[in-house]
Amino acid sequence: MLEQLKQQVLEANLALPRYGLVTFTWGNVSAIDRQQGLMVIKPSGVSYEAMQRDDMVVVALETGEVIEGDKRPSSDTDTHRALYLAWPQVGGIVHTHSRHATIWAQAGKDLPAWGTTHADDFYGAIPCTRQMHDNEITERYEWQTGQVIIETLEQRGIDPLAIPAVLVNSHGPFAWGRSAEDAVHSAVVLEEVAYMGIFSQQLTPQLPAVQQVLLDKHYLRKHGKNAYYGQN
Amino acid sequence: MLEQLKQQVLEANLALPRYGLVTFTWGNVSAIDRQQGLMVIKPSGVSYEAMQRDDMVVVALETGEVIEGDKRPSSDTDTHRALYLAWPQVGGIVHTHSRHATIWAQAGKDLPAWGTTHADDFYGAIPCTRQMHDNEITERYEWQTGQVIIETLEQRGIDPLAIPAVLVNSHGPFAWGRSAEDAVHSAVVLEEVAYMGIFSQQLTPQLPAVQQVLLDKHYLRKHGKNAYYGQN
Amino acid sequence: MLEQLKQQVLEANLALPRYGLVTFTWGNVSAIDRQQGLMVIKPSGVSYEAMQRDDMVVVALETGEVIEGDKRPSSDTDTHRALYLAWPQVGGIVHTHSRHATIWAQAGKDLPAWGTTHADDFYGAIPCTRQMHDNEITERYEWQTGQVIIETLEQRGIDPLAIPAVLVNSHGPFAWGRSAEDAVHSAVVLEEVAYMGIFSQQLTPQLPAVQQVLLDKHYLRKHGKNAYYGQN
Amino acid sequence: MLEQLKQQVLEANLALPRYGLVTFTWGNVSAIDRQQGLMVIKPSGVSYEAMQRDDMVVVALETGEVIEGDKRPSSDTDTHRALYLAWPQVGGIVHTHSRHATIWAQAGKDLPAWGTTHADDFYGAIPCTRQMHDNEITERYEWQTGQVIIETLEQRGIDPLAIPAVLVNSHGPFAWGRSAEDAVHSAVVLEEVAYMGIFSQQLTPQLPAVQQVLLDKHYLRKHGKNAYYGQN
Repeated sequence: MLEQLKQQVLEANLALPRYGLVTFTWGNVSAIDRQQGLMVIKPSGVSYEAMQRDDMVVVALETGEVIEGDKRPSSDTDTHRALYLAWPQVGGIVHTHSRHATIWAQAGKDLPAWGTTHADDFYGAIPCTRQMHDNEITERYEWQTGQVIIETLEQRGIDPLAIPAVLVNSHGPFAWGRSAEDAVHSAVVLEEVAYMGIFSQQLTPQLPAVQQVLLDKHYLRKHGKNAYYGQN
Repeated sequence: MLEQLKQQVLEANLALPRYGLVTFTWGNVSAIDRQQGLMVIKPSGVSYEAMQRDDMVVVALETGEVIEGDKRPSSDTDTHRALYLAWPQVGGIVHTHSRHATIWAQAGKDLPAWGTTHADDFYGAIPCTRQMHDNEITERYEWQTGQVIIETLEQRGIDPLAIPAVLVNSHGPFAWGRSAEDAVHSAVVLEEVAYMGIFSQQLTPQLPAVQQVLLDKHYLRKHGKNAYYGQN
Repeated sequence: MLEQLKQQVLEANLALPRYGLVTFTWGNVSAIDRQQGLMVIKPSGVSYEAMQRDDMVVVALETGEVIEGDKRPSSDTDTHRALYLAWPQVGGIVHTHSRHATIWAQAGKDLPAWGTTHADDFYGAIPCTRQMHDNEITERYEWQTGQVIIETLEQRGIDPLAIPAVLVNSHGPFAWGRSAEDAVHSAVVLEEVAYMGIFSQQLTPQLPAVQQVLLDKHYLRKHGKNAYYGQN
Repeated sequence: MLEQLKQQVLEANLALPRYGLVTFTWGNVSAIDRQQGLMVIKPSGVSYEAMQRDDMVVVALETGEVIEGDKRPSSDTDTHRALYLAWPQVGGIVHTHSRHATIWAQAGKDLPAWGTTHADDFYGAIPCTRQMHDNEITERYEWQTGQVIIETLEQRGIDPLAIPAVLVNSHGPFAWGRSAEDAVHSAVVLEEVAYMGIFSQQLTPQLPAVQQVLLDKHYLRKHGKNAYYGQN
């Protein structure tokens, strides 16, 4: 069942330690089969070294019920579900505590678009969510985490595929894309620009965002309908 | 004698370079057999590459006497003994000079709970000890180092298993847990949050600690009696 | 056709991940055969793991036309062409988004010559270009990027071989040399001094450039006509 | 001739990239045979991958003449010679451009003894030399670099074996010890405390040096005549 999707989710999860985004098992990737309404996600507490395709857990999108797999799904499953339900265009989601993206999340700050590395994949600042209310934390916390992410993008009028990541306040990043592989790509770029942003701002404390026309150029030559840009 | 515990201590010591926590031989892990009142600890001055199970040294908890092993026990043995004697719930202890935890220790500052990465394993700020008095340094220094750690947690009313690490002022971190493996886990997380804390504070200079309810949520879902959280 | 040059360009491209200068495929190296007026450049979107000599693309310097190769040349080809056309003494060019050079580019700042590591290979500050005008971004952007680099060196009276790198404002570094291998050397040194510069300035905020006589000594003992200096 | 010393010098040179202290060939280690008045040093411009025992160059201490070896000795040979001639107790010397020690050298600042990691091997602040005078740079530069190092330690009354490293202003570190291996040890510890110092000071801007009694304790328990300390 969903063998191909499980394989993609496995490979996307294994890419996290390879790109230096995770310590221990602090990360998870999922992908979705929209037609069947089923999500495939990393199991909870399995080491990356030991992880196999058949450890991936199949979960019903609507109910959160485990459909297949003898391991528990990631504890963050309900956050993933909330995002898939809100955003039909998203096919893969990743959560990590990667160091520099987490630094911005802990600092409670949006990460401005300070260069073309950012503009190549994110069409504007990567937003940081508001702090969660007490009742959002005490009740259905993982689900509410998803709701706060959705609220953040909605209030700012952001298309999730145009800015495919968010910084969850006091917590860490979620990133996404059309597939699990795309989501990992977003997470890697986010970590890279998060690192560079810390020191760019240190060198030029009141650093403005890149010119709008440069943001347009870089984002649209790769992602617009007239895209012509490959990969360097 | 204590072959299984020696194996655990060996593996925990070997994990230190794998997680990037040590340079040369600057680190040591121990574990304890409470029933026999015996502690197993890394030998002094043996390289990680050459280290074998039978190099581990068995020391009497009460007296510090070497019971088994033809190498000298770690020079920090008396600090480990002091902590085991004070804290019956602790089963393993680790000391390193890992870069970022040591930075906080050198700066003489507590490391606030600035995010959920911290809250997942530490139920509040990781304390920094006071500077030691001259006589504590000149006489029985390693033992007194342990006493200052114990005093620090006592004065702040900290359960050692709830905040399983400390920053020894001007020196570096000690971390612990129910076992040697747990202690290494604490040391790795400490290093991670120590790194992130430096730059989180740089981005937001007056950064407050995480909301209490978020600290409760993350710590208790993993460590409370109603824990439900696996590992992402 | 140009098999030897292709091999050199392949090896220079493969050196980029080995020196930690690139993430994904964010980097490209080219070299030129001046007699034939042909440039060899990395193809667009081929992973470093899979890259072969025959993937290198041959492009006509004057027209930008692809002369040989079944892959698309790097999207930055027109920037490379502009530089080769302006600077007959240059034989190889590299572009990366290496972290610390990109930080200076994003901050919009020249990188001063703050030590002998810099002086050994760069005869003065590494300049940052002005921001590009809107029409330079919207029309023939990659070509105009080259023109702004050329303008920057001209206005400051810089010989491209004396300061073989530039920081493109809001974007990242280009570096060059007499060959593809030299260009990579410049890019590695730039990244190294860019890292050190961030923290040198943090320690001494109003840090002046090195003494002129020291700059002369280090640069000229390696690169002057009376050069006597090997490699440490 | 001096086969054993050559082997030691080779191994010490190869340790530099293993400890992450060098880029390209930017580093060199030497050792001395005091009885014969001969120094063995790394050749100039040989890559670490290709370096063999018989590439090491034998140089006469008094005259600088090459006694054995078909390669040129390191360009920094005269600095090494100056130090050996001034300090009979030193048996090995290393020069690198390791990132964080070089940052302090570029910033022109002494590196204070801010913790026990420092105190374990350096009995006080690691001094930064004054800037060199123009004539010291233009004439016999490498020899004069050695003289400025010697002057710096003399003026501060430092025993070279008690503080076995220096920061050459605007340049980078030299370190030393009783042997080539000891010298590399000093260089590694210097790089470690240089890194930690940058951020310790960032956390606590007016950070005082460690208590004198703690400096005494850590240094003397390892290096004093009553030393009892092994390696953790």
